[in-house]
Amino acid sequence: MLGKPVADYLQTHRDEHLSKFFELLRFASVANIKGKPDQCHLAAEWLAGVLAEIGFDAVVLPAAGKPNVIASLHVDDKLPTVLIYGHYDVQPADPLDLWESDPFEPTVRNGAVFARGASDNKGSHFAYIMATEASLRGGGNLPVNVKFFLEGEEEIGSPNLEPFVKEHAEKLSADLAVISDSGFFADDVPSITYALRGLAYFQVTFNAQANDAHSGMWGGVLPNPINALARMIAAMQDETGRIMLPGFYDDVSELSDEERQAWAKLPFDEKATAAALGAKALTGGETGYSLLERRWARPTLDCNGIVAGYTDRGAKTIIPAQAGVKISTRLVANQDPGRIADGFKQFVADHTPEGMTSTVEVLTSARPLLLSTDSPAMGAAKAAVQEGFGKAPAMVRTGASVPAVEIMHRLVGLDAILIGFGSPSDNVHAPNERFQLDRLWRGSVTAAAFLQNIAAGPSKW
Amino acid sequence: MLGKPVADYLQTHRDEHLSKFFELLRFASVANIKGKPDQCHLAAEWLAGVLAEIGFDAVVLPAAGKPNVIASLHVDDKLPTVLIYGHYDVQPADPLDLWESDPFEPTVRNGAVFARGASDNKGSHFAYIMATEASLRGGGNLPVNVKFFLEGEEEIGSPNLEPFVKEHAEKLSADLAVISDSGFFADDVPSITYALRGLAYFQVTFNAQANDAHSGMWGGVLPNPINALARMIAAMQDETGRIMLPGFYDDVSELSDEERQAWAKLPFDEKATAAALGAKALTGGETGYSLLERRWARPTLDCNGIVAGYTDRGAKTIIPAQAGVKISTRLVANQDPGRIADGFKQFVADHTPEGMTSTVEVLTSARPLLLSTDSPAMGAAKAAVQEGFGKAPAMVRTGASVPAVEIMHRLVGLDAILIGFGSPSDNVHAPNERFQLDRLWRGSVTAAAFLQNIAAGPSKW
Repeated sequence: MLGKPVADYLQTHRDEHLSKFFELLRFASVANIKGKPDQCHLAAEWLAGVLAEIGFDAVVLPAAGKPNVIASLHVDDKLPTVLIYGHYDVQPADPLDLWESDPFEPTVRNGAVFARGASDNKGSHFAYIMATEASLRGGGNLPVNVKFFLEGEEEIGSPNLEPFVKEHAEKLSADLAVISDSGFFADDVPSITYALRGLAYFQVTFNAQANDAHSGMWGGVLPNPINALARMIAAMQDETGRIMLPGFYDDVSELSDEERQAWAKLPFDEKATAAALGAKALTGGETGYSLLERRWARPTLDCNGIVAGYTDRGAKTIIPAQAGVKISTRLVANQDPGRIADGFKQFVADHTPEGMTSTVEVLTSARPLLLSTDSPAMGAAKAAVQEGFGKAPAMVRTGASVPAVEIMHRLVGLDAILIGFGSPSDNVHAPNERFQLDRLWRGSVTAAAFLQNIAAGPSKW
Repeated sequence: MLGKPVADYLQTHRDEHLSKFFELLRFASVANIKGKPDQCHLAAEWLAGVLAEIGFDAVVLPAAGKPNVIASLHVDDKLPTVLIYGHYDVQPADPLDLWESDPFEPTVRNGAVFARGASDNKGSHFAYIMATEASLRGGGNLPVNVKFFLEGEEEIGSPNLEPFVKEHAEKLSADLAVISDSGFFADDVPSITYALRGLAYFQVTFNAQANDAHSGMWGGVLPNPINALARMIAAMQDETGRIMLPGFYDDVSELSDEERQAWAKLPFDEKATAAALGAKALTGGETGYSLLERRWARPTLDCNGIVAGYTDRGAKTIIPAQAGVKISTRLVANQDPGRIADGFKQFVADHTPEGMTSTVEVLTSARPLLLSTDSPAMGAAKAAVQEGFGKAPAMVRTGASVPAVEIMHRLVGLDAILIGFGSPSDNVHAPNERFQLDRLWRGSVTAAAFLQNIAAGPSKW
């Protein structure tokens, strides 16, 4: 249980915290916008200032793109160190005309604050900042050593994160990471995410003749790289959706009956999900698995983009010289992106017809993550969520990859627990993004309880 | 045999004709260039002026795009009327730095005139103009009624030709058309083209969800329109290249043994052709047919362009909302583009998976053409080529479609014979386009002989 002084501090400082939160939300910290003064730099400086005021040793560190904030408050060598990851950059706000209020002037309606970034991810990591302030000022000290790592380019795919983490590995060293960039499974279902899918993303190009050729003069003579590419893509999956790359399923961890049963009980409304996505049917993936199983525990293969030949309006009668496609696979434990890439390249080579050459470029890759749900850290997290939200969390996975998780795991050796306070109804990445104020209050209690629970556990994790 | 006065006239007026031909070549009559003064208008006015000077009733007629020239010289109601089609517009000249001389300042080197449009198509139709002048001034009169129809937008696909022909159908009426926009099979192989392939060109779109979706969050849940489109394209042909659209081959005229044998004797160098096209192998089309058979006498299916999802540099992890492809079929006698479109639409509907809708738009279509090689008109043409070039013409087909041929056939009821004087080595559509002067002289003799041979035949065709 969280000590009364800390809980009281959070309770009595709501107005002050809300006012600070609004300051953070007013920065239009969109990573792909270049402006003067740069709103990302301003947001990073503001965060470092707030953390320094609380007592952290906080710095804004330059990176190839937008800067990152690292802050550290070291209490005692004997205590474990928890690294809290979040990102201060936000999605672009457009289309602006669909917002009911200014996306960068936070407005409270019906118990929620509306602003770009309120849920993704400023609300979640601000709850952790509030928790550290309350622990220090209400409880007298932090229960563990705490570091913050607040990134500035998450929404554009963290393109400069890896060299940054490499350079500052020591500053980021910790015993455990907690990622505040996830959310509830549903509005009333607080959740802990214990698995992420990995990624292996490829660019494939088929090269046929040197130039586009007249399809009348040369149709029936020259091979067509679009048709060939289509045949290759089609051959990558059978009619049940099973992926035919060599060795693709060799290392896949099968789902336990326990997980299957737990997921079947989660309140997932397929119809509402389809409606929200504007989808006619949720027919992706392999047959023989439930929707959540396909989304969380099964690897997938999707073409992400394709372009070749004449793509403007009307007709142009050419056989294109080349054709290119972007294909990505989402991986699950214990698939290895390197082995998958080997199988992928083999498959492409085997399906490159006579008269063409092919190239495969690995554009990005990330390992899947699957954490034990029985570890002491998970126990600390579950108890914290129970305390903050009054119910046991659902243990869920996500189909997505979080580059920061994979990079920190690989370069700093950190395992991350994902506890975030957003909700699927928060209009994340869409107009009228919002964050329920109740989540901010309960989230900060959860965050403070989590740090305290970690302190009560083993000293090394 | 061509009368001596006409032959002599052509022989003695070479300098004058060449100088006129150079005037025509100096117009940079590129149809997609908008300039003042418009070089296409100037070229059309010049042609009408030259034809009027010879004795034609010549007009420059406006069209939705560049104007067209129609000229008529009516000799006698009892004589047949021959319509001569050509186009005065030319391909753009770029890349300019690869030209050895100014593309619009004709230059003679090694017996050939180098200029954009010299071969395609100014040289060929100018030979017909010279022939009519020689018939009139040397021979005293035209042997038949003659019309010229000189188009200004052939190189951009004749987008405005159909309404123009509809509007001026009466002015274009004739007994027979001769198209001067084809060429020799090889440098020493004068040729008559007796068949064109037809065309049915489609835009297919698969629509899945309302928006692009995150491929991590929704991979395995949402259906992917690129993957589905690839499966559909792949299913359109079997592994031998046979096209699987319902009823596709029902109306195909099989090649005669006579044609097979004749084509096998044509001097076709596959290696040199592959090298000229920058192709690794000439593996398009169906197995079981020779290259010329696949090119001239077999229908084909080619994707001409495809685009969907993210196509810029790097990785973006989306499942696209939709995917679109342009697919065209080249048709041979007696396939009907309407029936082919019906089968195509049926196939697309049958291959649209659950969770998607599809649309098919017919972008353009043209009927195939297959003329008898034994008709009186063909006899006149063969004898004319024999006289002009000193050898019997090869009877060839082309894999391409000529919109003007199809449009005139459909709207004016005209059958066209294709006799042109260009050569595969003329660098048509490329830098340093050229036209052998010998072809201009022999071509004009051929053209004059053809008109005379027609006069000697039946009065109605």
